[in-house]
Formats: sequence, structure tokens, C-alpha cells
Amino acid sequence: MAFGWIDEQARTRRRAGLVRTLRPRPADSPLLDLAGNDYLGLSRHPEVTEGAAGAARLWGGGSTGSRLVSGTTELHVELERELAGFCGFEAALVFSSGYAANLAAVTALAPHGSLIVSDAGNHASLIDGCRLARGTTQVVAHADPDAVRKALDTHSGPGVVVSDTVFSVDGDAAPLADLAEAARQFGAGLIVDDAHGFGVLGSGGRGAPHASGLAGAPDLVATVTLSKSLGSQGGAVLGPARVIDHLVNAARTFIFDTGLAPAAAGAALAALRLLRREPERALRVRAVATALHARLTAEGHEAVRPDAAVVSVRAPSPELAVQWAADCRAAGVAVGCFRPPSVPDGISRLRLTARADLTDEQIEHAVRVIGATRP
Amino acid sequence: MAFGWIDEQARTRRRAGLVRTLRPRPADSPLLDLAGNDYLGLSRHPEVTEGAAGAARLWGGGSTGSRLVSGTTELHVELERELAGFCGFEAALVFSSGYAANLAAVTALAPHGSLIVSDAGNHASLIDGCRLARGTTQVVAHADPDAVRKALDTHSGPGVVVSDTVFSVDGDAAPLADLAEAARQFGAGLIVDDAHGFGVLGSGGRGAPHASGLAGAPDLVATVTLSKSLGSQGGAVLGPARVIDHLVNAARTFIFDTGLAPAAAGAALAALRLLRREPERALRVRAVATALHARLTAEGHEAVRPDAAVVSVRAPSPELAVQWAADCRAAGVAVGCFRPPSVPDGISRLRLTARADLTDEQIEHAVRVIGATRP
Repeated sequence: MAFGWIDEQARTRRRAGLVRTLRPRPADSPLLDLAGNDYLGLSRHPEVTEGAAGAARLWGGGSTGSRLVSGTTELHVELERELAGFCGFEAALVFSSGYAANLAAVTALAPHGSLIVSDAGNHASLIDGCRLARGTTQVVAHADPDAVRKALDTHSGPGVVVSDTVFSVDGDAAPLADLAEAARQFGAGLIVDDAHGFGVLGSGGRGAPHASGLAGAPDLVATVTLSKSLGSQGGAVLGPARVIDHLVNAARTFIFDTGLAPAAAGAALAALRLLRREPERALRVRAVATALHARLTAEGHEAVRPDAAVVSVRAPSPELAVQWAADCRAAGVAVGCFRPPSVPDGISRLRLTARADLTDEQIEHAVRVIGATRP
Repeated sequence: MAFGWIDEQARTRRRAGLVRTLRPRPADSPLLDLAGNDYLGLSRHPEVTEGAAGAARLWGGGSTGSRLVSGTTELHVELERELAGFCGFEAALVFSSGYAANLAAVTALAPHGSLIVSDAGNHASLIDGCRLARGTTQVVAHADPDAVRKALDTHSGPGVVVSDTVFSVDGDAAPLADLAEAARQFGAGLIVDDAHGFGVLGSGGRGAPHASGLAGAPDLVATVTLSKSLGSQGGAVLGPARVIDHLVNAARTFIFDTGLAPAAAGAALAALRLLRREPERALRVRAVATALHARLTAEGHEAVRPDAAVVSVRAPSPELAVQWAADCRAAGVAVGCFRPPSVPDGISRLRLTARADLTDEQIEHAVRVIGATRP
């Protein structure tokens, strides 16, 4: 029978405790949210939701077509200009998701004959970008500039180094300045996914490249999401204008995708302006993450020191991770639960996300619940 | 220099007349739009824009995380239930784009050792799905069930046939019933991208699978977009519940992407309900396409007879296609212009899209302008 093999896979997943199910949430969920990526607490900010509502009313429910046909509105261009300016890049290009932005950046900048040097801990979308690109990929050890140098040294054509700035699972930061130096030494470009750095790291949340003094460099391309710190949906590629022009002409996930919905562009733009006005939100989310980590380790949990907003806590097994997360939820705290295949090392974790709008009392409450439910 | 090679590519593009530039549109564009994919004219319908605005207010500017973590709201589930019910499928899964939905369906349903039989005219997102999948791809002649049979006959493991239902460039329909029969004969599954059929074909716009009596079949998976007939953003996979469960567990563009923004889900749901109430919209868009084609061929244009809403008109060269489209635009009519690499056969075209809300006078006006500007 067609698709018969999926039933055997389903049985294997059940036996391994790796079944995933959707847990729909109501609009007025009473849970304390430490699971989502709404780092700055802007997703439900009235200025952001009105940004979405106003844009839908003015521009319509959708962008109606590819960005190259009818899908580019003046709103998209405004968002791109302000995003690039804020993060310190020459130009920006907005996509319907961060996933699409990463596929675009990697595939369009790694042609046939090129070498892609990819960190072993990179996000799925970067990995898929490597697999789709015409260049050859070499995966190197996590956060290891020397391994990057060694890989680039074996190759004579164009090279590109690809890395998350902040890794999604453990929340650790890449050695960005060292990676940039390694790439430059061999004339290679550097593509970094700043999904978890943008809005959190750098002055006023300008992101990891800005924090490292790399923003606007001719050999650096960064991607960001509009769906985390900006509380909306979508992604963007930031870089030199000539690179952005190249993406407009060559990136399949730009050319063959419908443009981002006006409501998402409007929400992101409103959030960006809010962040400009209230730069302390970026400081606060880092302080919350640091406090969460300090309190958890003080209670004896094995947690990775957060370089941004993600705090990862080790769980004994996939089954117990699921149980732990479920018990937290039952006690009123939503936490993420990362299991294979979402973790590169097979180790299951609770994944907590700091938010700028969490109070000290909420942090304390969360730590108490996580401790009380520990398996 | 890093990314140095893109300048040579840019020069080549310029010489070939293939440079793409973005043309931002204002909210109150005076152009008659025959370029976008807003087939039912719903993108700016007040119920749809209020659907977006209301959802943003109630649920926030973004979904805040992966659908598996915090990104599934009750709104997503409602949309999925109604989409599946409307189109006659057991279950549905909503994605941030049709591109992501296609990547998900193909990669998750074509494992290592499987054969993917892919139509030569398939959309870029299906092609990228084939390239990302672990199975082996065999590209077969366009709309040729015998070629599909021949390909499947060479293979012993799981097989899956992949095709657009309506091809985006020429607007021609796939021989769906024949393809299904060919796939069944060899125990293979069938994945069809109904991006340009949903809302246009079938009773009340229920789509090409419904029109062919295939909706709900255990060996059929369909993808649709929410960004064309529904005037919003996003995509969905429709199929048997066990296949949808498999995607939840295995599809990387589902697991590692942020969920669709509430505003987009709200707009799509409002549009779907509107279509249910006003099924004549689907009839009207087909009548408009037929009228456009009849009038254009009567004026001596070389146009493909439309099977859905897309009317493709042959242009003499990429440069003249661009000039023609620009002259139409200058005369107040926006038309699409498809050039390599967006066309499978290298032939440049004007691409006109019918809309349910076009009046007979507007059709007449468009035909006059296209004739008067013909190169």
C-alpha cells in the first residue's frame, strides 16, 4: 500500500518515546510561558497587534504574489530599510519565514564548485540550505574556528562559512569574531543565522553581528527572524546591497514564494520601532536569562550558561523529558522539551526561554515548579 | 574577495536581459491587476482583512514558536479542520508557506530507497523537495502518465508521484485521474500541489483532487496555498490522518519553522468561510479566464487555453516580454512577466491571472491594452 512504511516508523517512534503531538493553546492560556521565542514579550503588545491589524486593513490579507510580481508593497520596502539600518547593514530582504531566508542565503551564495563549511550544531534550515546548494558541504566541529580554517585550506574555489550566532538548542554563542577572521583569511564569505541573537544581543538588540563589530562588512551576510524578538512572522537576509540584489535574482525561496503577508510586515515594523524606542528590553531579556540560569544551577540543575535568551536544562531521557515538561505544564509553567531528532547530540532537554516581560516573581515561580517536578 | 563571483553573474544577467528588480506598489495602486494570484478577489475583502485584524488582536502578532512548542493555537486547529472538511480530506496541516508545505510533503514521504517520479514542469518548491528528499528522483515528461508508469516499473521500493495539478507558468492541468491510476497500479503514493486549483477548480472551489473524485483517497496527498484563492499567506498539506501525523513527526519545515502567524490563519479562515457561502466565486474566476483567453486569441495572440485561472501569452524574447509588460503597466494594466529561469522551456511569457471580481469591461480593457502594446 502507498505510504505503508510510515506505520512501521510510527511504531518505532512510539517504542522510543519520541511521538510528537500538537497541543493547541487557547487565546487566554493561564500558563506562564517559558517555551515560546517571544523574547521581548512583544507578540501581544498593542502596538504590534495594531501594526498587524492596520497593515491588513490597508494592504489586504495577503501580498497576492511573488515579491517579483505583485508581492512587494511599499510596506515591505519600509521594513527592509529600517531593519537594515537598525542592524547596521547596507540592505535587507524580507522572506515569509526565517527558514526560507536561510535556504535563500545558503543556496544563492554557494554555487557549484564552492565549499560550504557548516557548524555541526547548525539549525535545520541551514543544514537544508547546505543540502540544496550546488556547492560541497563540509561539516566541522561545533564552534571551532580552527576546524573552519582547516576545511577552507583544502579548497581553492569560492568558500562560505555558515553558522548560527546563538545555537537554538543550548543557547550558546558562536565565536563570531574568530569565525569572521578565519573566513577572511581564506577569502571566504560568512553567513550567520542571528535568529536567536537579533533583539537580544548587541546594543539595543541590534544582534550578534553588530555586537561583534561585523555588521555591514562586505563579506558578511546575516539572517534574522521576524517571529522571535519582533513577535511576528517571517525572516530577512541582511548584507551588502550587491548580495541582496543577487538574492533577488537567484534565490528560489524568494522568487518562487508568495511575499510576506502585510499583517506580518506591519507587526514586525511596529515591533522594530518599539525596540528602537525601548532598547532596555534587550538588556532585560539577557538579565532574565542570567537570573534563570543562576537560580536553576543553584538548585542543582545541569543548565548551560546562556549567551542570549535560551536556557537549556539537561533531562535524563526523552521519556523523562516529556514527563518533566508535562508536569511543569500541569503546574502552570510551559517549557520546551527538545528530543531527538531536534537535538544534535541525542541528549533530551528542557528548553526555557527568557522573556523581557517576565517579573522576578515569575522567574522564582518557574524555578520552583521546575525543581518540584524534576524526575 | 568573498562573494566576488556574483558580480560576473550580474553582468551576465544584464547582457541577457534577465535582471530582476522589485517594483514596490502603493496601497492605492491605480493599476488593473492581472499579475497577482488573488484569484477570488478576496485579499482585500473586508471579512478577510477583519479576519486578519481580529486574529492579531486576539492571538498576537506571531505564533511565538514552532507548531510543536508554543506555535499551535486553537485557531490553527480550526483552520485545519475546516480546510480538510471543505476539500474532502481526512486531515490538514498548516505551514507558513506553500513552499514549506511542499518541502514537507515530498521530503517526509520519500525516504531513503524510494523513487520520486516528478513532472518536468513542476514548481520550484516541489523540485527543491525532491532534491532534499532522501529518495531518488526521476524527472519524467510533462503530463505523461505513461512515462510515470515506465519510471515506476523500474523500481521495487516505495514510490511517490509528484505533480502540480495546475502548472503555474502555462496554467495547464495535469491528467490527475490518469496519474492516480498509474501510481496505484504500482502501489505508489501521489502528491499533488493544488496551489492553482484550490478555490478555482472543483465544486465551489474544492480543488482539483475533489474535481477528480480523488479527495480523501488513502494514497493521495495534496498541498494548497492560503496565499492565492484565500488571499492570505501560508500553505497546507491535506491527506489521510496517518500521513498528517507522520508529517508532524518527520517534516523538518514543520518541526523547525515558526507556526503561521495568527493574522494569516484568521484571514484564511475568513476567506474559506466566505467561499463556502459564495461558491459562485469559483465559477466566475474560470469564466473570466476563459473569456480572457477567447478574446486574446481572437486578437491573434498565442495563448494557452486555461484549465484554471492562469492565462499564459507567448512573448518573442525575454527583453520584449519585459518591454511588453512595462508598456502594459504604463497603460494601467499590471501583468506578470515570466522569463528564464522561471520558465521550464526558456520561452518568455506574459502571465495573466483571472480574478473572480474582474468585470467584463475590465477584461475588455485589459485585452485592448495588451493588444496595443504588443511588441
